[in-house]
Amino acid sequence: MGKIDFWYDLASSYSYLAAMRIEAAAAKADVELRWRPFLLGAIFKAQGWDDSPFNLFPAKGRYMLRDLERVCAAAGLPFCLPATFPQRSITALRIALIALDAGWGVEFSKRAFELEFGEGRDIGDRIVLERLVFDLGRSPESVLASAETPQNKERLKRETGTAQALGIFGAPTFVTSDGELFWGNDRMEMALEWARRAQCHASDNQMP
Amino acid sequence: MGKIDFWYDLASSYSYLAAMRIEAAAAKADVELRWRPFLLGAIFKAQGWDDSPFNLFPAKGRYMLRDLERVCAAAGLPFCLPATFPQRSITALRIALIALDAGWGVEFSKRAFELEFGEGRDIGDRIVLERLVFDLGRSPESVLASAETPQNKERLKRETGTAQALGIFGAPTFVTSDGELFWGNDRMEMALEWARRAQCHASDNQMP
Repeated sequence: MGKIDFWYDLASSYSYLAAMRIEAAAAKADVELRWRPFLLGAIFKAQGWDDSPFNLFPAKGRYMLRDLERVCAAAGLPFCLPATFPQRSITALRIALIALDAGWGVEFSKRAFELEFGEGRDIGDRIVLERLVFDLGRSPESVLASAETPQNKERLKRETGTAQALGIFGAPTFVTSDGELFWGNDRMEMALEWARRAQCHASDNQMP
Repeated sequence: MGKIDFWYDLASSYSYLAAMRIEAAAAKADVELRWRPFLLGAIFKAQGWDDSPFNLFPAKGRYMLRDLERVCAAAGLPFCLPATFPQRSITALRIALIALDAGWGVEFSKRAFELEFGEGRDIGDRIVLERLVFDLGRSPESVLASAETPQNKERLKRETGTAQALGIFGAPTFVTSDGELFWGNDRMEMALEWARRAQCHASDNQMP
């Protein structure tokens, strides 16, 4: 079975589009999927940007908004750009790491994306996150405490460092097990097809 | 019949991908196509970049190269990144304007893209352009002279100003007659579908 890593930041609008459809697409392509949260803002900072390129370059930002409206409409997804964009996603990402370990990280991530880009809520707001965790049947106090241990903070930094070392510069990015990068929601199908074929070739090379 | 403007810069790698397939795609969608050359570098300069984002952000540049290799292979197009990227396209763009008026601008533009990104030749080199014009059965001296009149230089500036006023920030960009922008080779199908439907709606609104 082919494998793919789905690198995403919960602040990334195009990661929302990818998150809402990648499970079905990966299942259809018979590719094993791993969700990999990382902090895109840290990578932007490293290349000299202190804000989203959608804010730094206004024409691009206006376009993104219109493009998201159209693509969401075509995909039947709700869309409402939050008042603050991009949002501070660091706490949400730390929770996502904890939740992925415990088996509810995909559900948490998708719900966070829906709140943020479907309903325009602020996932940088601790109250919003606590309520989200509660609605998923977990204890907000205990989850937040685990998310904010020094070890887990360090882990998000390490994951972000791994993303950067892989050559990731935007989100979403799909990485196959043979190290191919595919950037953007529009490249999901090509990435899954690559992952599927890479696996076929690996099988071909196995001795009977 | 729906209408679409195809805004491109002859220095733009993803415009090459679009140029090689847009005629067939527009014909299939029954959309009337207009080729609109412009100088993307002038728009980059206006937002503070003095080079291509693919050079300013090395991870993005490395990714672009690999992405183009894969997409060209999938589309059956030759690909060879020229030693200098991006190339100085200003003279080629001035020729494209003249050639479009005279009915051979699409052929000229496609051949320039093929030389540049299919064979790695330098379309910033006057000798390469003269040979290209000659191979298309035109007089290089006379075409170059027309391309470099003050009026034609001014026209390319005006076209670039129009692109910027439309909100264009990259190439290729497709613009429908109702003013919708679609950025990137990956948005061509959505743009053509929009153009086709915009026309249907326009017909619906006409009194019988």
